[in-house]
Amino acid sequence: MNNWTVVEVLRHARHDWMNKLQLIKGNLALNKIDQVERLMDEMVMDARMETHLSNLKLPKFAEILLTFNWEKHPFHIEYEILDESSSWPVDDEKIARWIQDFFEIIENSIEPYYENHLSLSFELNDKNVRFYFDFSGTIKDIHKINKWLDDQKLLLKEVFVKEINEKKLIAEIIV
Amino acid sequence: MNNWTVVEVLRHARHDWMNKLQLIKGNLALNKIDQVERLMDEMVMDARMETHLSNLKLPKFAEILLTFNWEKHPFHIEYEILDESSSWPVDDEKIARWIQDFFEIIENSIEPYYENHLSLSFELNDKNVRFYFDFSGTIKDIHKINKWLDDQKLLLKEVFVKEINEKKLIAEIIV
Repeated sequence: MNNWTVVEVLRHARHDWMNKLQLIKGNLALNKIDQVERLMDEMVMDARMETHLSNLKLPKFAEILLTFNWEKHPFHIEYEILDESSSWPVDDEKIARWIQDFFEIIENSIEPYYENHLSLSFELNDKNVRFYFDFSGTIKDIHKINKWLDDQKLLLKEVFVKEINEKKLIAEIIV
Repeated sequence: MNNWTVVEVLRHARHDWMNKLQLIKGNLALNKIDQVERLMDEMVMDARMETHLSNLKLPKFAEILLTFNWEKHPFHIEYEILDESSSWPVDDEKIARWIQDFFEIIENSIEPYYENHLSLSFELNDKNVRFYFDFSGTIKDIHKINKWLDDQKLLLKEVFVKEINEKKLIAEIIV
């Protein structure tokens, strides 16, 4: 895990916000008020999602998701939390390590110079945390990912691969 | 110095941005487009100032200024950098310690339940860094501040107290 300084964290966060703000300013200059409102609502929703993630009392796990796109990786992530619960019955260290392993396997199994994108959704379901992964991009080593996911069946409550091919991986796991 | 986690830093930064964004949304709802533009320009300028401060390669000093208002203190600060230089001929550790000492003396010499505000400006001038301090609020122990500033004359290149009374302290120092 990267050892972020306050100045670095703020630099990245500021950069993200400024990009969005410039987009809003551009639309305002063109008098596209509906678009301005939509973009601002999106910013508010993104911020609420970050607040929700930050409130789960899983600081390591949250830090990984909040900072992932600031580091150099061959894919980008976006995440969504689908439930309103304020805590998850999981261990921060464990879940942080697991998601980092997962990101590493993805990183080592895809073509770095293509557009690669990973969407994650999390949901608390009957005392279990359910993760959905939806990867779109170019996978060069399906075997490696498949094997790793297979190994995970011994560690996790459920691993369900819905689709896996060169362009797509959709999986659901329960930790 | 506070040991900030990434999640904490982002929580505070997000809170600050969201407040500004809500103000913009409010003005947009009232169709006050001029005001919306003014507020957005302000956000851009504040961000540029933070970027400038963060680029000075004085990470400890920058961190103190960037996070001060997030901590519980009996006064708020705002700061401005008046020159365009990209580095200052000062030692980060030293200047960070000095500004923290100064904040502590202010903190211990003012009435905490009044509105207290400290404006700082910095300027690089002929290879020296010049600080201007403008405090407005309620000082209960002028003697303590005066004595401390007097002591600083031995440590700093110049200490010039322009005004000091119960409601005001204006000083200029050169480090």
